[in-house]
Amino acid sequence: MNEFSRQAGPLIAEVNITPIAITDPPLLNAAGLHAPYALRTVVELVTTDRISGISEIPGNISINADLESAKQIILGKDPFQLNRIKQELEHYFGSESASLRGDAPWDQRKLVHIFSAVEVACLDLIGKITNRPVVDLLGGKMRERVPFAAYLFYKHEGAGGKWEFKTDPAAEGWAAARQAKALDPEGIVTQAKEMCRAFGFQSIKLKGGVFEPQAELDALKALREAFGPDVPLRFDPNAVWKLETAIHYGKQMEGLLEYLEDPVRGQVNMAEARQELNIPLATNMCTTSFEDIPGSISLGSEDIILSDHHFWGGLRASMHLAQICNTFGRKLSMHSNSHLGISLAVMVHLGAAIPQPPYTLDTHYPWQSEEVIVGGRIPFEEGAVQVPEGPGLGVELDKQSLAQLHRNFLSCGLTKRDDQIEMQKIVPGWLFQQVRW
Amino acid sequence: MNEFSRQAGPLIAEVNITPIAITDPPLLNAAGLHAPYALRTVVELVTTDRISGISEIPGNISINADLESAKQIILGKDPFQLNRIKQELEHYFGSESASLRGDAPWDQRKLVHIFSAVEVACLDLIGKITNRPVVDLLGGKMRERVPFAAYLFYKHEGAGGKWEFKTDPAAEGWAAARQAKALDPEGIVTQAKEMCRAFGFQSIKLKGGVFEPQAELDALKALREAFGPDVPLRFDPNAVWKLETAIHYGKQMEGLLEYLEDPVRGQVNMAEARQELNIPLATNMCTTSFEDIPGSISLGSEDIILSDHHFWGGLRASMHLAQICNTFGRKLSMHSNSHLGISLAVMVHLGAAIPQPPYTLDTHYPWQSEEVIVGGRIPFEEGAVQVPEGPGLGVELDKQSLAQLHRNFLSCGLTKRDDQIEMQKIVPGWLFQQVRW
Repeated sequence: MNEFSRQAGPLIAEVNITPIAITDPPLLNAAGLHAPYALRTVVELVTTDRISGISEIPGNISINADLESAKQIILGKDPFQLNRIKQELEHYFGSESASLRGDAPWDQRKLVHIFSAVEVACLDLIGKITNRPVVDLLGGKMRERVPFAAYLFYKHEGAGGKWEFKTDPAAEGWAAARQAKALDPEGIVTQAKEMCRAFGFQSIKLKGGVFEPQAELDALKALREAFGPDVPLRFDPNAVWKLETAIHYGKQMEGLLEYLEDPVRGQVNMAEARQELNIPLATNMCTTSFEDIPGSISLGSEDIILSDHHFWGGLRASMHLAQICNTFGRKLSMHSNSHLGISLAVMVHLGAAIPQPPYTLDTHYPWQSEEVIVGGRIPFEEGAVQVPEGPGLGVELDKQSLAQLHRNFLSCGLTKRDDQIEMQKIVPGWLFQQVRW
Repeated sequence: MNEFSRQAGPLIAEVNITPIAITDPPLLNAAGLHAPYALRTVVELVTTDRISGISEIPGNISINADLESAKQIILGKDPFQLNRIKQELEHYFGSESASLRGDAPWDQRKLVHIFSAVEVACLDLIGKITNRPVVDLLGGKMRERVPFAAYLFYKHEGAGGKWEFKTDPAAEGWAAARQAKALDPEGIVTQAKEMCRAFGFQSIKLKGGVFEPQAELDALKALREAFGPDVPLRFDPNAVWKLETAIHYGKQMEGLLEYLEDPVRGQVNMAEARQELNIPLATNMCTTSFEDIPGSISLGSEDIILSDHHFWGGLRASMHLAQICNTFGRKLSMHSNSHLGISLAVMVHLGAAIPQPPYTLDTHYPWQSEEVIVGGRIPFEEGAVQVPEGPGLGVELDKQSLAQLHRNFLSCGLTKRDDQIEMQKIVPGWLFQQVRW
């Protein structure tokens, strides 16, 4: 029998919150246009014995202030005591912070957002303390590589940052396609081909809700024509369609799409569309929290939930969601916002641990050009990312890059994401409409 | 920045499966009578670097054989790779093993049963490898002590093993009450008083389904009379009542009970009873697996789920269940069979980690007199058990006691639990009926 001594583990001694701005191309969506910079916030927890745990969340001035005020709860805590930390954050921010969210797909509930930042950084710490990758803290790897989908966007000319393709000649085409405008089926097909060539993606998602439905249907048909019958296609008009529109165009997408994401707004409309259409429906808009699950189950609002650890409150919560999906016959995929390698690594650890094989995950990663981790951009092979091998997340902060991206944040003048204002710079008077067509 | 090297961790090098028989008093329930011995199986996993991880499950000849044949999957595995081990066990035993169970409350689905044994022992290993208590692997402690309920049984004379009360004079009364018959309200009240005095329990559960309903209602009224208005009472007739009986007697238990457990059989009947009665209904019979959850939600079959890590497939699965309960407005308690200190320690780690405070947990522990862990019987304070502090489960196998209890198993001649056969020794021709009154 081995002897074990009970040790107090290291405690959280520093909470470093660094808002950063990363260059972002002028991508279009139902809510408007991406600004030249996407805001992220990098959280670093440092323990009493100088171990560093990190996370990355969508940033804005309000969440940064909330994180600052959450320091008083986080400091001095044992990173293993996540149940307790969550409870204290719930008490501190109040239970309504768990349930309120805005209308845009990226609007976050405060509590899950903050807890996700803290939990992921703590799991990174726990992994380093125990010398295990984060995936092992979630029950271990079900797969060595986690596959992603090519995430296509209608866009204006411009790349928002130089693409550094290093050793991979396939990425040269992507550098051009990433720079080019894509406002019609031809542009989308070129974008898709170059993105798939550079990253090896084997399934494709088009973000829609930008043009009237027929134009976007034409783009999907052009993709099918260009890629042949076997490449899974998905389409996401971000709930900007009326129910009748969704039924009319959804019927024409039967057999064309692997799944149709958020054709309409709200669980009731989604459930009605689902009754009418012979095509799996996915969501990251109508079922985005545990509070939404009972409605999802009673109404039958979707077939596939696009989880997102930033939205759902971390990795253990995402594993709970996976069990709920398994229990109720939902499938899983994963949602993404513009992000860097910390979030990518987290998605890969989670994607590797989920018992049921998820659909290939969404990622904006090919649209970003910068990095904040040591070693630079994470490589894709055949559209998949290898699970990092080191302890914790297996990625570490590049402090110089972090400082540079923080300077970007200070100089860019943005304080929160507002795609409507960006759109108005190009189309004066343009207004976001919850339902447009 | 610390430097971390990627190490291969220890692998599982030995699987020791030891059936044991523990003396058990002649407790009555709807399915008959407890035999003089309850069968448990102790599983010990030993790693390549001689770390030992343990678990304890309800034993029978069939599950022991299945565990033996599962060795080929478990041996050589990294104990962190639990997702993969579960998948391989699923493939090996076939998916139907996950869903079949018998009619008795203790009937187990094979897969969850075996995986629970393996997972708990692996979490014990992981805790020892990382020098952390198992509760910390589940997100950490929400409470320092986990409270249990006094679990009363109608019983015949006899204790099945000597009660060793050591230093605690309060336990002397319990030694006598544990020995005494309890076949009427007076006997039940005496049993309750002595059990509460010895262990400090502050809530009470009576196992019913033994006598006709009025007799058991009289016992509940006697308990209320004896303990005053503030001690929570629960009652479990193990689904042996007709729906009309449940409604008739359930109405008389409104205001008397904290909850009524399994008055009727099956989710449909439970949902109907729940419509009629103004009293929370609990179950460990109609909703006992993730496969049962959709029916539970659509029918509304209970208010409280008595989880059991042996039934639900381990501790992470039990944490998933806790999230599901939280999501759908179910409360949690915990079910028990006759057990020793390994299972008790596991229940305490889990009970401490569950975010929402559960109802006080069930335990048969006061009815057992033996132990299989170093240091002997685990103490209760005010009806609660302190979360063990050591790494892993914080309890270790006493190899001498294990050998003795294994000899009991070999000599007792029992191969599976059969309360009907035991009952027939006293009441010739007695037959179990699913619904009796």
